[in-house]
Amino acid sequence: MARTVGVMGMGNVGSTVAHIIVAQGLADTLILYDRNQDKVKADTLDFQDAASLLSTHTTIINGQISDMKDCDIIVSAIGRIDLIVPGSVDRFAELKTNAPSVAELSKDLKNSGFKGILLVITNPNDVITGLYQKHTGFPTHKVLGTGTYLDTSRLKRHVGEALNIDPRSVSGYVLGEHGDSQFAAWSTVRVEGRPFTEIAKEKGIDLDQLEKDTRFGGGEVHVGKGYTNYAVATAATSLIQIMFSDAKTEAICSHYNEDFAGYISSPAILGKNGVEKVLELPLTDPENENLKKSAQTIKEKSEQFG
Amino acid sequence: MARTVGVMGMGNVGSTVAHIIVAQGLADTLILYDRNQDKVKADTLDFQDAASLLSTHTTIINGQISDMKDCDIIVSAIGRIDLIVPGSVDRFAELKTNAPSVAELSKDLKNSGFKGILLVITNPNDVITGLYQKHTGFPTHKVLGTGTYLDTSRLKRHVGEALNIDPRSVSGYVLGEHGDSQFAAWSTVRVEGRPFTEIAKEKGIDLDQLEKDTRFGGGEVHVGKGYTNYAVATAATSLIQIMFSDAKTEAICSHYNEDFAGYISSPAILGKNGVEKVLELPLTDPENENLKKSAQTIKEKSEQFG
Amino acid sequence: MARTVGVMGMGNVGSTVAHIIVAQGLADTLILYDRNQDKVKADTLDFQDAASLLSTHTTIINGQISDMKDCDIIVSAIGRIDLIVPGSVDRFAELKTNAPSVAELSKDLKNSGFKGILLVITNPNDVITGLYQKHTGFPTHKVLGTGTYLDTSRLKRHVGEALNIDPRSVSGYVLGEHGDSQFAAWSTVRVEGRPFTEIAKEKGIDLDQLEKDTRFGGGEVHVGKGYTNYAVATAATSLIQIMFSDAKTEAICSHYNEDFAGYISSPAILGKNGVEKVLELPLTDPENENLKKSAQTIKEKSEQFG
Amino acid sequence: MARTVGVMGMGNVGSTVAHIIVAQGLADTLILYDRNQDKVKADTLDFQDAASLLSTHTTIINGQISDMKDCDIIVSAIGRIDLIVPGSVDRFAELKTNAPSVAELSKDLKNSGFKGILLVITNPNDVITGLYQKHTGFPTHKVLGTGTYLDTSRLKRHVGEALNIDPRSVSGYVLGEHGDSQFAAWSTVRVEGRPFTEIAKEKGIDLDQLEKDTRFGGGEVHVGKGYTNYAVATAATSLIQIMFSDAKTEAICSHYNEDFAGYISSPAILGKNGVEKVLELPLTDPENENLKKSAQTIKEKSEQFG
Repeated sequence: MARTVGVMGMGNVGSTVAHIIVAQGLADTLILYDRNQDKVKADTLDFQDAASLLSTHTTIINGQISDMKDCDIIVSAIGRIDLIVPGSVDRFAELKTNAPSVAELSKDLKNSGFKGILLVITNPNDVITGLYQKHTGFPTHKVLGTGTYLDTSRLKRHVGEALNIDPRSVSGYVLGEHGDSQFAAWSTVRVEGRPFTEIAKEKGIDLDQLEKDTRFGGGEVHVGKGYTNYAVATAATSLIQIMFSDAKTEAICSHYNEDFAGYISSPAILGKNGVEKVLELPLTDPENENLKKSAQTIKEKSEQFG
Repeated sequence: MARTVGVMGMGNVGSTVAHIIVAQGLADTLILYDRNQDKVKADTLDFQDAASLLSTHTTIINGQISDMKDCDIIVSAIGRIDLIVPGSVDRFAELKTNAPSVAELSKDLKNSGFKGILLVITNPNDVITGLYQKHTGFPTHKVLGTGTYLDTSRLKRHVGEALNIDPRSVSGYVLGEHGDSQFAAWSTVRVEGRPFTEIAKEKGIDLDQLEKDTRFGGGEVHVGKGYTNYAVATAATSLIQIMFSDAKTEAICSHYNEDFAGYISSPAILGKNGVEKVLELPLTDPENENLKKSAQTIKEKSEQFG
Repeated sequence: MARTVGVMGMGNVGSTVAHIIVAQGLADTLILYDRNQDKVKADTLDFQDAASLLSTHTTIINGQISDMKDCDIIVSAIGRIDLIVPGSVDRFAELKTNAPSVAELSKDLKNSGFKGILLVITNPNDVITGLYQKHTGFPTHKVLGTGTYLDTSRLKRHVGEALNIDPRSVSGYVLGEHGDSQFAAWSTVRVEGRPFTEIAKEKGIDLDQLEKDTRFGGGEVHVGKGYTNYAVATAATSLIQIMFSDAKTEAICSHYNEDFAGYISSPAILGKNGVEKVLELPLTDPENENLKKSAQTIKEKSEQFG
Repeated sequence: MARTVGVMGMGNVGSTVAHIIVAQGLADTLILYDRNQDKVKADTLDFQDAASLLSTHTTIINGQISDMKDCDIIVSAIGRIDLIVPGSVDRFAELKTNAPSVAELSKDLKNSGFKGILLVITNPNDVITGLYQKHTGFPTHKVLGTGTYLDTSRLKRHVGEALNIDPRSVSGYVLGEHGDSQFAAWSTVRVEGRPFTEIAKEKGIDLDQLEKDTRFGGGEVHVGKGYTNYAVATAATSLIQIMFSDAKTEAICSHYNEDFAGYISSPAILGKNGVEKVLELPLTDPENENLKKSAQTIKEKSEQFG
């Protein structure tokens, strides 16, 4: 009956994910875990202090991974973003620390008997999502990462701003790694019923600059406050809502790609079983080349931590 | 037409207020200000990066106080909570730094021609709210503080937990200062259709302990993460929603009290004009005495910074 | 995982319940049944035609009672309100027709293997809720009716209007039958932190008139449009939300009363198991007398259709 | 400050529009008008009876057109759908009765001094929207109709069903008249990152059948219950939300078309000023031909009632 979510890692991102879930009543039960017991307890009290003021109720539990056995969805938001030099977007700086934690958490997840969906926000996203799947042995369609869902939203913002149009009225994707090798697949970007490339040409909009702004968008936020949280947490809760309601919605996320035998972002149909269908995009040759290169980058990093 | 909110101060509290507003579409336009331009810019980008994923749209502007002239409601969330020693709830530690900022912002607010409602979260809440009103000369009913709205919510949580009941099903108030001299007005607390004091007696619930837990609830959160944000931001946005919709809802907040000639929390009816009516509670004599003492505490602190 | 609701009876009330569920994303799957296949199909198409415009997704199925086996909550909204003479509030006019339908549906519900909660809106509410429990043999705590939840909301409106205050800021109950023998339990009604009776005395508010307006509120709506739907459907979905999130919220509804050995409305704590606790209100002697009389009225009608 | 909406005509559609606004807190003040005073009063009471159970507050007023002067948006939902033979989709059957009412209401709107946006649901939608604009003399960008926004949503549903995909993941338009001369502009319909026509070819999906299902979707609902309300009311409130928040969202609606010198549906950017930009779609020649024919149909009907 109840929609149950677990969150592993209650740093800036995990706590914002939890806040959105509580504030919007997305889950009926929320189980929170962090190695830092003081932080998770503080956030829990803070959420509960607001309970009398909300229009929905969420039961919040501080627990261990073993308590998350019956969760429908578990979110991995662990991370050491403080290891990243502000201004850099090198999400691999976190990998060395995050990888061992992932191995440990995976063991606990496997032992718990958890049968639900594992949604990974932890960076470097594609590598970490792949590690989770490998360590847990969960079916690939039930392990996915937020990937370039956020970068795609950033791209929509930049295109929207260039045309003074709602980013929700822009379609298209940032493909590949949630990291430096990502790229805006311009052939997929449409707005006002037309390919954006046409409009950009007419208006003299610099696509390269726009792509760069998208790629380094996270870095800009990171410089300003030392972390990013709102957009990525919104992306994660948006995916949760899609999967809870079995909506069969098209969304881009990091999922297992048969061709590359690894995790990378491309659009998929999501539902109660996680990734229900992977879309075949009619990309241009250079885009396909970029995707292959990005997959290679992820693969190399993954192998270092296999 | 548009609902417009301004937020002054984009620390942990201000940015959470802004996030709730954006995530729930409470305002159509949101104007954000902080002396730390990098922080406010980073939060704005982070919010905008999520825009394509939300079901409502909010126009977000980084501006100065002068740009907030036409806001319906301006929130003061400035503060230097880092000055407070963790574990302490001495909100007066912030006063020395916050008071001069309030004087300056008040000047800007006055000069802007702003005619709306000023909602103060900044601590020490009652003193600061009084200072804002004094410096701006705005009508007292249009200047209010979140006061013990949060503490009241905390009390409801503790009572709810003691009885395994939804805190929304508990009524009653924490009166007085949003600080150490506050008190649970037990004569006002009701649950399950009965006075809570009766139930507490039957079940051997320790009222003093419960009140202490309420008073030091913020401290406990502060110890765990160095600040509190979710509950107080929820309280603020709850008040904003009441006033936007002119709901004439009863809510406790820090407002000008004629008898004490100063700001202190007691229940009031809120609407589009801010505080529309102050309620006369039938308190016990000791409660009245406590209220008087709390008002005196606030007065003394206020006079030091008048 | 999914929150699943079944609705039996897609007249004005059932379809409004379904609409609220779909519009607010309260359930992930919604199974609709009506003997009038054209009506239920028309409503389903109408809901689905809106699906691309909503922020949440609901899977809608036209099914039989047997398809509702795995529902968490099933709502009974069947009824022949057209049999009622406009202006009358004699909900018993419907009993003769509704009772046989209830017997039949109960058989189907029992045979289906349904283990969830049965929420009854069908009138006369207390009698019908009792019949459902008797025919299905489901545990009494899992069979409940909307009862005077709606009448209580009406009372709050009238009290709120008398004082120009938000009805959400009024507490108290209309007890007894969802019908003519109901009564405002004035000793329970509080507003502005005080007993409403005191305020009414001071302001010369006529309690009898207010109670009469409450009791005949439904009749007035019925005269104007031939049915009532919005408020009662809101009441039902409010109860659904409480139970889905296991909120342990206090709400008044028609539930099994040990003392009267029958269904009647009084406040209770609701959660995932339906009625989790029945409250013992400290009523006045005349109020206790009224409650007894109301229970007697329900009993007599019930026995005619046992 | 307050978001204010007026609704003219409280039949099945108008009252559902009002219900969504109240249930979701889209407006702070709602002014309702219908010639049938009993119906509008009954709905208002029904909404107010639910007020204590909602998480937002809306002030509801029964008024005249003159009371709607300061509304931000006024919705026209008047109509005599009962004049239409079930199974037919000949929305012109209503024109004879609706046209004189529109003339009268337009006079009242003009006299009131109303400066906001007029959103027309009344059918035949394009003709009626044009009549309103002509009679009131309001700027064309501030008078718009729901047009084929609903038909487009229907098309998305049919495409989604054919592919087992969320209709929100389908893009494209039904262009032209909200009536028999409308057409699915297949060249604009995309799903899974590809033109739908390609996918349809691969899978043997009959586009003509799909278009027919879309065009006669309303008729099917009408047969089943004698009216349609949920989807069209959702379309209207979706447009209201876009305009309130000045979202610059792309949406299809019936607006003034310079080329045809009349009202017809094509995609536009909507914001606080109503129609802010009309999009130029790269249609195929046959689609352009169909659009021209549809405009001609609307023109002919309009001239009969000029």
